[in-house]
Amino acid sequence: MRAVDLIRKKRDSGEHSLEEINFLISGYTRGEIPDYQMSAWLMATWIRGLSRREIAALTEAMLHSGEVVRFPEIAGKKVDKHSTGGVGDKTSLILAPIVAAGGLHVPMISGRGLGHTGGTLDKLEAIPGFNTALTLVEFRRALSECGMALIGQTAEIAPADKKIYALRDVTSTVENVGLICASIMSKKLAEGIDALVLDVKTGSGAFMQKEEDAVRLAELMVETAQRMGKKAVALVTDMDQPLGRLAGHSHEVIESLEVLKGRGADDLRDLSIELSAWMFYLGERTESVDEGRELAQKLIASGEALEKFRKGISLQGGDARVVDDYSILPQAKNCAEVIGPTSGFLAATNCMEFGVALAMMGGGREKKEDKIDPGVGLEFHKRIGDRVTAGETLVTIYYNSDAKLAEAERRIQESFSITPQQSAPKKLIQRLVGA
Amino acid sequence: MRAVDLIRKKRDSGEHSLEEINFLISGYTRGEIPDYQMSAWLMATWIRGLSRREIAALTEAMLHSGEVVRFPEIAGKKVDKHSTGGVGDKTSLILAPIVAAGGLHVPMISGRGLGHTGGTLDKLEAIPGFNTALTLVEFRRALSECGMALIGQTAEIAPADKKIYALRDVTSTVENVGLICASIMSKKLAEGIDALVLDVKTGSGAFMQKEEDAVRLAELMVETAQRMGKKAVALVTDMDQPLGRLAGHSHEVIESLEVLKGRGADDLRDLSIELSAWMFYLGERTESVDEGRELAQKLIASGEALEKFRKGISLQGGDARVVDDYSILPQAKNCAEVIGPTSGFLAATNCMEFGVALAMMGGGREKKEDKIDPGVGLEFHKRIGDRVTAGETLVTIYYNSDAKLAEAERRIQESFSITPQQSAPKKLIQRLVGA
Repeated sequence: MRAVDLIRKKRDSGEHSLEEINFLISGYTRGEIPDYQMSAWLMATWIRGLSRREIAALTEAMLHSGEVVRFPEIAGKKVDKHSTGGVGDKTSLILAPIVAAGGLHVPMISGRGLGHTGGTLDKLEAIPGFNTALTLVEFRRALSECGMALIGQTAEIAPADKKIYALRDVTSTVENVGLICASIMSKKLAEGIDALVLDVKTGSGAFMQKEEDAVRLAELMVETAQRMGKKAVALVTDMDQPLGRLAGHSHEVIESLEVLKGRGADDLRDLSIELSAWMFYLGERTESVDEGRELAQKLIASGEALEKFRKGISLQGGDARVVDDYSILPQAKNCAEVIGPTSGFLAATNCMEFGVALAMMGGGREKKEDKIDPGVGLEFHKRIGDRVTAGETLVTIYYNSDAKLAEAERRIQESFSITPQQSAPKKLIQRLVGA
Repeated sequence: MRAVDLIRKKRDSGEHSLEEINFLISGYTRGEIPDYQMSAWLMATWIRGLSRREIAALTEAMLHSGEVVRFPEIAGKKVDKHSTGGVGDKTSLILAPIVAAGGLHVPMISGRGLGHTGGTLDKLEAIPGFNTALTLVEFRRALSECGMALIGQTAEIAPADKKIYALRDVTSTVENVGLICASIMSKKLAEGIDALVLDVKTGSGAFMQKEEDAVRLAELMVETAQRMGKKAVALVTDMDQPLGRLAGHSHEVIESLEVLKGRGADDLRDLSIELSAWMFYLGERTESVDEGRELAQKLIASGEALEKFRKGISLQGGDARVVDDYSILPQAKNCAEVIGPTSGFLAATNCMEFGVALAMMGGGREKKEDKIDPGVGLEFHKRIGDRVTAGETLVTIYYNSDAKLAEAERRIQESFSITPQQSAPKKLIQRLVGA
């Protein structure tokens, strides 16, 4: 078998066998197939697509390129959630403590933000001392003691994905449902979980902007998880506007804590509870999703979820005083306001632009090497359907350097659309796949 | 400008600007754009295609990546021919001496064989001592003294093409008319010629198997040459069967000498004279192509073309006794016969398979590093339309090692198709483009 022939096959819209996929992935992981051949194959694959059988083979090949974690020492069910990412999406910080407080275990391997999206690891690292680079031994201990642990992808977990993702990022071969499915699922299936809840974002702030693409990705991921013997469900949820009222690293930690204290934005609370409810149900903690919802609400109301988060922060080296004192988080020195240009109703937002503007101000990464300024943030004062008066503040920008402030302000302002008629926002949860 | 954005643009079927093409080619030539980005771009380009404007920009960018040779010291017209390659195509060895004997100058930068095709340089190197690696100074001197010189691509000529071609070869991005056009024309336009005759092969032994692809490539190349102020014409010619009766390096030198002696196979002689005639006409040596044809025939009949070849061989260090004594060429020790399985008429051949079988026996390269055995060859006894009797010899294989003989015999036998009805072969010259 030769890589050049497999590249040609995919270029000509052929379907790979299991053996061919294994040859490509193991050869590339071992360094026998060079980057330039893999990137040609990735581009052919991006354009020609992958069949369900190929996606299954690719996911398994990437999963087995590294270690598959098992937790025989933990008796209870292990569940996790994965979101495809968007602006202001901080549900992991909320549902991990809720679900752990409910008695399940959440071994969560998360990612970093890139482009317009934020990353769970970066948000947690806004908390002074928080260490997301646990070894597998420390990860096991935290999980076992606290029921939750949030770490980054280690060298042992799906190394093929790590190597391929880095290459996709620089060769414009990211947004393809088959490649995305294999990348996400190879990592998630390596976590040793029993069940997985997927939050697939769709809309102007999502990678899959079209609902049909989001549904296709959702179906592929659920199918992949189920074929590997894991329970799985996917919620296709709205990302036409930010989730919650705050974006930016310190800001999102604060908003997550607010929800855990029974406050915070409705949409963020509702989605966090919904995702927790499905985790309780798939993790067999409750008999139904309804019961899961009630349990999640109860764990917030009682303060148990908040206490679980406090313990989780401590166990990973973070300064747990943050729970009661937000001032220990890095803060931006200045703020600026983006003003509504006309009166009317907020009809739509180009949500991705908020993430781009945030990254531009230092609150995100344009390149992988970029350092994040966790104090930088955006506060959204209006939601789609809200009445807007000319001169009213739409967004507050919290920033340190004003080098790119003017461009960020312009981008934010241009991404609002205000109309005379009131239009209804999209439903937060648009589709349920696999239930 | 970022390579990743240009890859995305081509992936999404966008058209590049001149500046974008220049950025890609100069960045890649200087090593600032890595192989893995260029190969992703090449695959996107292979699949999505290039516009005429993009092909023009790409050709110029590749041409100007290196030195453009000029011959101010040579007063006469400089003309060249390029063939897209096939099996048994040895016309360069015949027409270069004919055209030089006619008073024009032929500065020919040729290639090596790869896959099923032979290369002019490899064939010349079958002649003991023949040096195709002249420096530009030696090249000028040979051209000036003898009117012809045949060398390989030097480091100074179109380095971008050299680097990109090597990458295309290992990433299955070779057969694309835009990329082929830019690759050929960037080298040919760097030769300092006034006119170019193109021989674009079509049929089962050609890279462009479909006539429409061959015509498109012919049109693109003629257009490119004319835009750069060069006279150009393309002959689209048949490669459904080998050209001449012999394939293999020593064998093709012999057959070329036979044609220069007024003998040899009809199709090979006819095409060589036709291409020479066009070179005479475009090089303004004759008033018409007809007159060019007569001149070529006269130069063969008088022995002037043969004497020119003798001088050319000497000037490049080769043993010119070869002209009179074929035994100084490397010879194969053994021969085997491929027999006609049934009686009937030869209806078609899968011509590429002959080239593959030849390479397999050592008479060609499967990988660039492979060493060629110049003595290995094939002799074709039948042409399409000929009567065949069961048990009659179709092909004689001249070989040294029998390691792959059985497979080569099988491939050759299977590539003949014999039918009860006689069918006419295709016309040798199918189309004239740009005249």
